Amino acid sequence: MNRMDVTERIISAKVANGIKWEDVAQKIGQSKEWTTALCLGQMTASAEQAGILGDLFGLTDEERKWLQVVPYKGSLPTAVPTDPLIYRWYEIVNVYGTTIKELIHEEFGDGIMSAIDFKMDIQREPDPKGDRVNVVLSGKFLPYKQY
Amino acid sequence: MNRMDVTERIISAKVANGIKWEDVAQKIGQSKEWTTALCLGQMTASAEQAGILGDLFGLTDEERKWLQVVPYKGSLPTAVPTDPLIYRWYEIVNVYGTTIKELIHEEFGDGIMSAIDFKMDIQREPDPKGDRVNVVLSGKFLPYKQY
Amino acid sequence: MNRMDVTERIISAKVANGIKWEDVAQKIGQSKEWTTALCLGQMTASAEQAGILGDLFGLTDEERKWLQVVPYKGSLPTAVPTDPLIYRWYEIVNVYGTTIKELIHEEFGDGIMSAIDFKMDIQREPDPKGDRVNVVLSGKFLPYKQY
Amino acid sequence: MNRMDVTERIISAKVANGIKWEDVAQKIGQSKEWTTALCLGQMTASAEQAGILGDLFGLTDEERKWLQVVPYKGSLPTAVPTDPLIYRWYEIVNVYGTTIKELIHEEFGDGIMSAIDFKMDIQREPDPKGDRVNVVLSGKFLPYKQY
Amino acid sequence: MNRMDVTERIISAKVANGIKWEDVAQKIGQSKEWTTALCLGQMTASAEQAGILGDLFGLTDEERKWLQVVPYKGSLPTAVPTDPLIYRWYEIVNVYGTTIKELIHEEFGDGIMSAIDFKMDIQREPDPKGDRVNVVLSGKFLPYKQY
Amino acid sequence: MNRMDVTERIISAKVANGIKWEDVAQKIGQSKEWTTALCLGQMTASAEQAGILGDLFGLTDEERKWLQVVPYKGSLPTAVPTDPLIYRWYEIVNVYGTTIKELIHEEFGDGIMSAIDFKMDIQREPDPKGDRVNVVLSGKFLPYKQY
Amino acid sequence: MNRMDVTERIISAKVANGIKWEDVAQKIGQSKEWTTALCLGQMTASAEQAGILGDLFGLTDEERKWLQVVPYKGSLPTAVPTDPLIYRWYEIVNVYGTTIKELIHEEFGDGIMSAIDFKMDIQREPDPKGDRVNVVLSGKFLPYKQY
Amino acid sequence: MNRMDVTERIISAKVANGIKWEDVAQKIGQSKEWTTALCLGQMTASAEQAGILGDLFGLTDEERKWLQVVPYKGSLPTAVPTDPLIYRWYEIVNVYGTTIKELIHEEFGDGIMSAIDFKMDIQREPDPKGDRVNVVLSGKFLPYKQY
Amino acid sequence: MNRMDVTERIISAKVANGIKWEDVAQKIGQSKEWTTALCLGQMTASAEQAGILGDLFGLTDEERKWLQVVPYKGSLPTAVPTDPLIYRWYEIVNVYGTTIKELIHEEFGDGIMSAIDFKMDIQREPDPKGDRVNVVLSGKFLPYKQY
Amino acid sequence: MNRMDVTERIISAKVANGIKWEDVAQKIGQSKEWTTALCLGQMTASAEQAGILGDLFGLTDEERKWLQVVPYKGSLPTAVPTDPLIYRWYEIVNVYGTTIKELIHEEFGDGIMSAIDFKMDIQREPDPKGDRVNVVLSGKFLPYKQY
Repeated sequence: MNRMDVTERIISAKVANGIKWEDVAQKIGQSKEWTTALCLGQMTASAEQAGILGDLFGLTDEERKWLQVVPYKGSLPTAVPTDPLIYRWYEIVNVYGTTIKELIHEEFGDGIMSAIDFKMDIQREPDPKGDRVNVVLSGKFLPYKQY
Repeated sequence: MNRMDVTERIISAKVANGIKWEDVAQKIGQSKEWTTALCLGQMTASAEQAGILGDLFGLTDEERKWLQVVPYKGSLPTAVPTDPLIYRWYEIVNVYGTTIKELIHEEFGDGIMSAIDFKMDIQREPDPKGDRVNVVLSGKFLPYKQY
Repeated sequence: MNRMDVTERIISAKVANGIKWEDVAQKIGQSKEWTTALCLGQMTASAEQAGILGDLFGLTDEERKWLQVVPYKGSLPTAVPTDPLIYRWYEIVNVYGTTIKELIHEEFGDGIMSAIDFKMDIQREPDPKGDRVNVVLSGKFLPYKQY
Repeated sequence: MNRMDVTERIISAKVANGIKWEDVAQKIGQSKEWTTALCLGQMTASAEQAGILGDLFGLTDEERKWLQVVPYKGSLPTAVPTDPLIYRWYEIVNVYGTTIKELIHEEFGDGIMSAIDFKMDIQREPDPKGDRVNVVLSGKFLPYKQY
Repeated sequence: MNRMDVTERIISAKVANGIKWEDVAQKIGQSKEWTTALCLGQMTASAEQAGILGDLFGLTDEERKWLQVVPYKGSLPTAVPTDPLIYRWYEIVNVYGTTIKELIHEEFGDGIMSAIDFKMDIQREPDPKGDRVNVVLSGKFLPYKQY
Repeated sequence: MNRMDVTERIISAKVANGIKWEDVAQKIGQSKEWTTALCLGQMTASAEQAGILGDLFGLTDEERKWLQVVPYKGSLPTAVPTDPLIYRWYEIVNVYGTTIKELIHEEFGDGIMSAIDFKMDIQREPDPKGDRVNVVLSGKFLPYKQY
Repeated sequence: MNRMDVTERIISAKVANGIKWEDVAQKIGQSKEWTTALCLGQMTASAEQAGILGDLFGLTDEERKWLQVVPYKGSLPTAVPTDPLIYRWYEIVNVYGTTIKELIHEEFGDGIMSAIDFKMDIQREPDPKGDRVNVVLSGKFLPYKQY
Repeated sequence: MNRMDVTERIISAKVANGIKWEDVAQKIGQSKEWTTALCLGQMTASAEQAGILGDLFGLTDEERKWLQVVPYKGSLPTAVPTDPLIYRWYEIVNVYGTTIKELIHEEFGDGIMSAIDFKMDIQREPDPKGDRVNVVLSGKFLPYKQY
Repeated sequence: MNRMDVTERIISAKVANGIKWEDVAQKIGQSKEWTTALCLGQMTASAEQAGILGDLFGLTDEERKWLQVVPYKGSLPTAVPTDPLIYRWYEIVNVYGTTIKELIHEEFGDGIMSAIDFKMDIQREPDPKGDRVNVVLSGKFLPYKQY
Repeated sequence: MNRMDVTERIISAKVANGIKWEDVAQKIGQSKEWTTALCLGQMTASAEQAGILGDLFGLTDEERKWLQVVPYKGSLPTAVPTDPLIYRWYEIVNVYGTTIKELIHEEFGDGIMSAIDFKMDIQREPDPKGDRVNVVLSGKFLPYKQY
C-alpha cells in the first residue's frame, strides 16, 4: 500500500457518495484548497485530520496512517500537462513567466516567491459578460542572500 | 530581423538606461503586467504603443513595426523552467494542479479558466514576518458545451 | 476504479456487441463527435446521459457516477502520436501550424481559436477520385485584451 | 543559404511593407492557405510563382531558386507547441484524437485521412455571441490494403 | 480486454505450439508481412481471417472480435528503438533520410511515398560472402497539390 | 570549418546551378544513393572523388579535404523526423518494426540485417493507378554468436 | 507470458537458491558474459541450453520455449541509465565517444566495430593500489562500402 | 572564446595538414587514447603539453591557456548518439548493461568500475575472417562503503 | 519478486508500526543516512543486517535474501524530480553546478568528488531565525590521470 | 548583449590572466562559493561589487550594469548533466534523494530545505587514503503550513 492507493480510495468514495470538497474542508476546519490538496495526496494530515477523513471516506487504520506520512509530491502524470484546464496554468507560466520574474525582481530584488510558505484562494467572480475564476496566490518573498 | 531581436534590444536599452517596467507601463497607459509581457515579446502593440516604446527604447522603424506583429508566444527556453523564481510557479501547477482542477469543476462544472480573457496583478503585501508576493489571477470561465 | 476503467468497459462492450458510435449518439441526442469523446473519457455526462450509456453498455451504478465526473483529459499515450491516422493530424499542425496562426491573426488580430467553445463535424465527401474525409472545425475567436 | 533564410527574408519584407497574405495569394492565384504555407517554407513554388514572390518581396535570384526546391517540412520549434493559438490545435488532437480515429474508421474502415492530398480553408463565421473561426479540412481517405 | 491482450495471446500460443508466421500467412492467404503485422496488432482482420486465426491460436469469441477492430498502431515501446535489429532500420532512416528525400523529390517532385498504400517483401538472398536480407518496399507516390 | 559547412556549400551550389544528383553520381561512378549520401555529409570520399565533387561544386582545397574525413553521421535534426516524406519511413519502422524482426528471425535466427554492409536502390515503378516508389534494401545478415 | 517473465523467474530462483552466474556458465559451456546476457533476456538459447537452464532454475516447459525465442533486446529502463555502475559505462561513451570514433577511423577507415560479431570478457586485475576491473571488448570491423 | 573553439581549431588544422592522432600522441608522450581525448576537449593539458599542441596545430597563446583549463566534459551532441560507430557502444551498454552489472557485483560486491581512474587501449586484431577492433578497458573497482 | 517489492514492504511496515529510521539505524549499527538508503533499495545488506531488518519489518526469507543482492540504483521516478524537497537539491546542482566544478578544480585539479567513496550527514542546526538543515557531504577526490 | 555574454567575458579574462576565484572572492569580500556563482551568471551584484569585478576583468560600463540585473538562473546545458564532476552530484540526488527526503521529514515534518536562504562551503579535507572534498550545505527549513 502507498499514498496513491489512499488517494484513489478517497476519490472513489467521493464519487460514490457525492461528497463535495467544500464540505470536507469545513469538517477539517481548513481552506478548501489545502484540504483538497491533502486528499489528493499532496499534503500531510495530523492524526485528528486523518481521523475525520477516515470516517468520512471509510478508510482503514493503515490508510489513516498513510495520510499522516509526508507524501512524494507532484500530482501530474506528464511534465507538460495534457488536461486543458491544467494546461492553461502551464501556459500562463510559459507566456507570463519572464514577466512575473521581471516584476517581482523590480519590486523585491533577487529572490523568489515561496511555494511552501504559500496559500491560494479560488473564488467565483460574477460578471455579466460571463463569470470569472478569481485566484489569489500569496507567497512569502525569500531573498537570495550573500554569504 | 524577428521579434526576439526586438525583445533583446528593449532589454539591452532597459539595462543600459536603468528604465523601470512600472514607468514604461505608465507611459503606455496599461498595467505593468501586460506592458512587461508586451516588451518581452508576448503581446501585440498598437501603432501608438509601438511609437511610445520606440521613443523610449530608441527603436528603428522596422523594430516598431515588429512590435505590432502578433508574436510566436512562449517565453521560456525549456519545458521545465530552470530559473528558481519561475520554477516555483511550475511547482505550484505540479503540486496544486489537480486541486485547482477539482475546485473549479466543483464550482463551475466542466470547462476551463481562460488564459486569453485573462488578467494578472502582482503586488507587494507587507507582512511583519516577511513581506509577501500577492498575485491575483482573473480568467473568464469557459464551459465545455455539448453539441 | 477510475474513469479509464469505465472507458475500457465501454469499449469492451462496444466490441463485444457490435455497437456503433452513430447509434450511441442518436440515443444520447448529441452529435457523434461529442458523444464518442464522452465515451472515450474526454467529456462529462449529465445524469440522464449516464443512465442511457449505462443501460446501453451494461454499466454499474458506480461506473455511471464516474461518467458524470469531469475527467482528466488527454486521450493519447505519447506526446507525438504513433498511430498513423492520428499522426496525420499532428503533421497538419506541424506543417500548417504557422500558416494557421498567420491567417487567423490576419483576419482577427491577436487571440486564439477556442478548443472549448468548439465543435467538430466529420463527414464522408464522395469523390470519383476517391472519397474524402471532410472535417469542419468551429471555434469561437477569443481576443487577447489589454488591461 | 537555405530555405529558412528565404522564409525569414519574406517575413521581414512582409512586416516592413505591410503586405497581407490574402493579397499574396491573389497574385499567386492559389488559396491563401497554400500560399502562406509556401511563403513560410512548407511548400514548393513553380518557377512562375517564385518570380511573382521574388518581385513582391524583393528576393535575389538565388532566393527565388530556393523557393522551387522541396523544403524540409515542419514549421514548429518544439514537439509540443508553446504558442497558445497553435497549442489549441495540438489540444484538439490530444483530446479528440481517439474520437476522430473511431469515427473515421467507423465510416471508412482501416486507413487514414491524407495530409498530402489535402486542403484547408479558414474563414470568419459571424456570430452574435462572438465571431468564430471556421476551418474546413478535406483529405482523401487512403485505405490500408491487404497484400 | 484490448487488442494488446489478443496480441500477447497469439504470441504465447505461437511460442507454445511452435507455429511459423509463414504457415499462418498461407492459411490466411495473404503475404507473410501483412499477416504477421496483423497478428502483432497493427492491421485489421476480416471476419473470415479472424476465424482462421481464432482456430489456429485458440482464441475466444471476444478475442476474434477484437481482431476485426482497427487497432491503435505503433509496435515499439520507445521512440528510438533499443532492439538492435529494429534500431538498424531506424539508423537507415537517420543516415539515409535526407538522401531518400532528395532522390524521391528529384524523380517525382514534392510529395511522399505512401506508408498506407504500401507493401513490403522480405527475402533471403543467398550470397557466398554471407547471405543477405533483401527487402523490397513499394509505396504509391502521393504528390502535394496546390489549391 | 566542419563537414556541415561543406554539405551546405554543396547544396547551395546545387540549387544555384540546377545540378542533379543523378548526374553527380554518374561523374563519381557510383550509385545515386551512395553519392547523394556522400554529398549530404554521411559518407567518406576518396581523394579522386573529392576532386570530382570539388570541381563540380566549386569547393576549396580545405573543403575537398573535409570530404575525405569520416563524418559524424546522422542527417536528421530531431529524433522523430518532422518532414512528412521522412516521417513515413519512421512510421514504417514503428508499425512494421516488430513484423520485420519476427520474419528475419524466423528465416535467419538471432542476428541483424546490417546497415553498414548495406545498399539501397530507389526507382520509379510506373503504375496506371499512380506511379509507385520502389525501394530495394539489401543488407548482409549478421548472426549473434555464442562465445 | 513473455520473455521478461522468464527473466524475472530466473533472477528470483537465483536469489532464492544462491546460484552464481559463473556456475551457470560452466553448465551451459559458454562464457559467463554470454550466459548472463542470455539469462537476463538478451540472447537466444538452443533447445539443449534451455533444458539445462530449465532444470537449474526450475522452469516450466513454456518458459523453456520462451528462452529459445529471439528476445526484444535492450536491458535498461531509461535512455540514460540511473544505476551508478552502468552509468559509468554510459559516461565512457559520452566522454570518449568521439575519441573512439577518431582512432578506429584512423586505423581502419570508415566503418564500425560490430556489436553483433562481438565478444566481451570481464576479469579482476589484482593491483596493490586497489584491484581493477579489466574488460576486453572484441568486435569485427565492418567497413562502409561504396556501391 | 571557449574550449570548443579550441577543439574546432585543432580539428581544422588536423584536416588541413593531414596530421595523425598517433603522431600527436608520440609528441605528447602519452597514449593515443588519452591524447585524442585531450585534443577533442575532454582532458586537461599541462603547460608543456599545451605548448607542444600549440606548436603542432598553430594555436594562439590564449588557445594554449584554454587547453590547461579543466573542460566541461561530454563529447556527444545527443543523449542517444546518432553516429553508427558510437551508437554501437551505446548499444553494448544497453544490451549488456545489466550483464556487466551482475558480473562485476558477483566478483567484487557492491561498487562501481571507475571511469576516472580509468584507461583504454584500442588495437587492431588481425583475423582471417576480417580484422577485429580490440579494446581493453581498465578501471579501478571502487566499493560502496557502509558508514 | 524484486527489490522494489521489498522496499514497498519495508515502508508499509514502517508506516503501520510507526518505526523511525533513526531507530533502525541504531539497530543496524550504521548511520541513519546509509541505513535509510539501504531500506529504500539503494544499498546492499550483509546477512546479519538483513536478519535485523527482517525481524524488525517482518520480512520473509526470500525478502531477506533480496536485501543482500546489489540493487539497480536510482530512487526517483523522473529525471527532473517533482517533489519540492528533492527538487531543491536538483536546483542546487543546476544553479551551483558550474560553481562547484570550478572550485573543486581550482583546489584539486581535474577529477571528481566520488559519489561511491562517499558519506553524508544530515543534522538540525538550531537558529533563532528558523532552524536550518545542515548537511555535510564528504567524497574522496579522484583525479583524472594521464596514461 | 545579455548576461551570458558577460559570463563568457569574465571566464575568458580569467583564463587569459590566470585569475583565481578565491582571490576574486577576497576582493569582493564574500565567500568563494557565492562569488563564483555570481561570476558564472547565477547571482546579482551590488553596484560596488560590479565595479570591483569590472576593474578586475576589464568590463565595459554596460557589462557592469548587466551584473546588477537579476539573471535567468540555471547553469547547465542539459537536464541530466554530462560532465562527470557535476553528474556525481546529480547521482547523489538520484540515489539518496528519497533518503534525504525521509530523514528531513522525520526530523522536521513536512516542508523543504531552502535553496534560497542557503549557503555552501567547499573545503579540502586531508586524508591519508586520499584527500576528500568536504561540502557543507546549510538551508533554512521551511515548513508547509495549513491554511
